[in-house]
Amino acid sequence: MVSICDVKAAAGRLKGHAVRTPLLRSDALDAACGGRVWLKPECLQVTGSFKFRGAYNRLSALDSDARARGVVAFSSGNHAQGVARAAKLLATPATIVMPADAPAVKIAATRADGATVVLYDRYTESREAIAARLAEGGATIVPPFDDPFIVAGQGTAGLEVAEDLAAMGVTADVALVCCGGGGLASGFALGSGLPVVTVEPAGYDDVARSLAEKHIVALETLPPTICDALQTRSMSPLTYSVLSGAQARGVVVTDAEAASAVAFAFRHLKLVVEPGGAVALAAALTGRVDLAGRTAVVVVSGGNVEAEVFARCLAA
Amino acid sequence: MVSICDVKAAAGRLKGHAVRTPLLRSDALDAACGGRVWLKPECLQVTGSFKFRGAYNRLSALDSDARARGVVAFSSGNHAQGVARAAKLLATPATIVMPADAPAVKIAATRADGATVVLYDRYTESREAIAARLAEGGATIVPPFDDPFIVAGQGTAGLEVAEDLAAMGVTADVALVCCGGGGLASGFALGSGLPVVTVEPAGYDDVARSLAEKHIVALETLPPTICDALQTRSMSPLTYSVLSGAQARGVVVTDAEAASAVAFAFRHLKLVVEPGGAVALAAALTGRVDLAGRTAVVVVSGGNVEAEVFARCLAA
Repeated sequence: MVSICDVKAAAGRLKGHAVRTPLLRSDALDAACGGRVWLKPECLQVTGSFKFRGAYNRLSALDSDARARGVVAFSSGNHAQGVARAAKLLATPATIVMPADAPAVKIAATRADGATVVLYDRYTESREAIAARLAEGGATIVPPFDDPFIVAGQGTAGLEVAEDLAAMGVTADVALVCCGGGGLASGFALGSGLPVVTVEPAGYDDVARSLAEKHIVALETLPPTICDALQTRSMSPLTYSVLSGAQARGVVVTDAEAASAVAFAFRHLKLVVEPGGAVALAAALTGRVDLAGRTAVVVVSGGNVEAEVFARCLAA
Repeated sequence: MVSICDVKAAAGRLKGHAVRTPLLRSDALDAACGGRVWLKPECLQVTGSFKFRGAYNRLSALDSDARARGVVAFSSGNHAQGVARAAKLLATPATIVMPADAPAVKIAATRADGATVVLYDRYTESREAIAARLAEGGATIVPPFDDPFIVAGQGTAGLEVAEDLAAMGVTADVALVCCGGGGLASGFALGSGLPVVTVEPAGYDDVARSLAEKHIVALETLPPTICDALQTRSMSPLTYSVLSGAQARGVVVTDAEAASAVAFAFRHLKLVVEPGGAVALAAALTGRVDLAGRTAVVVVSGGNVEAEVFARCLAA
């Protein structure tokens, strides 16, 4: 299991390496939601998403022998970049298994940090099996969310929010968190102590359904979505345990709503947000989570988006 | 004149109204410059640029009679939005004189805050004369930079930087500041206490020339530029006095360099920056101010850019 103590230990390891992202306000966002919203912009994090937090926490907790044998990770892109950067900073060889249709910008950034990239077909191959094969020489597999160190690392974003709100004397009612396998959402629930609503893209509602049906639900089909960062088949026992224990619930937004939130962030927040990183914002803007009269934290989880996709979101 | 005491008084008036923008780091930026750069992202400020600081400081210092008579401002867009928002918050009628070719997004945002917008031709008409005529009924003219309250308000950005650097035990060697008429640059020099290098678009080097030639130089021609926020004919005695007293110097960057900096901010910083707000970043990236081995503050002054212009910058 993982607890707030693990999150605090992670915060100590990350100090001076991760960005302590600010809490931002926006009149336009408050007006659109009818509430008071604090934004946690993890697009401003090292490697452009929250993923660096968990990756650095995981790798920095390996002993020197394990580091020398290297790490293997599978990821749609943001976790890849987080692991690659953490591995570079800790002088650890890294091999990353990435879907062949991941954004080119994410593949390029992963390679730029010195990692070896192995591509696979997201819809027909098992990234877990490929990673296990690559790790046969003794490398450590760094999963995207099914690991207490990863969850604790992501949780440092929630811990920062709790500290910043406390310093301002603000009490929030709810936190909206972008959700793939639930690593960020579960860590955020632990670190912030806030009631969490997970937000997934339509067609990827495994977490919402798991929390509603009170057992882990695995998706049968994985439809295409512009939210490439959130294409997860099912959560893990670890993230399920934390989120169900925290009585989290889940909602979904459409691709069009995510794209519209990307455009809102461009126009009013002046932040570059990728579609998958904008789903929590979309849930706030569309009222899928009603924030009227409430005080909320909305997590923007990443900003690694290709210029063409971004331009399409702005034009829509 | 204006002093650090005026900047501190402005910080008191702005508290709770302006965003205390964070200081951001980026490995990609450090690598590109060969130094250690702290970014002050004023695109995250209320109304998307630093201009709200000066406008709110100026308007909040008016007595109730003056507020009732209203304010008149002339601006290429960001000052317009700053004044319109400050006027709205302080229940003051506002009329804004804007160039007809200002970005539609800036004109729309100004109107959305309840201001009356009067358009003029930037290349043939005098905005000062139009504003003077509109103010004949007793309204107060709020100039974009030639006013001690405006300079002191903009200076709060520098004061925040000084406080944040001191809290981290960091000493910076230089600050690169985007520059039109010098309101931000002079305020920043006062508030931060740092040596300032002003950065202007090519063809708008009135501040660089004024500082080099040791008297105020007015431009004869105003060429088109994508840096619409910085199209100023000449600085004022006030901004000249502060910047020359602070031994500031000036450099220029081309439109292409500004556009490239916009694209860099998109890719690596995840910030939406307008071309005029990116000139200081461009000066850092191009080495027009050599930051190798140095610690620098780079101000990103605004993010109010139309989607089409932004897309062109990313594609270039």
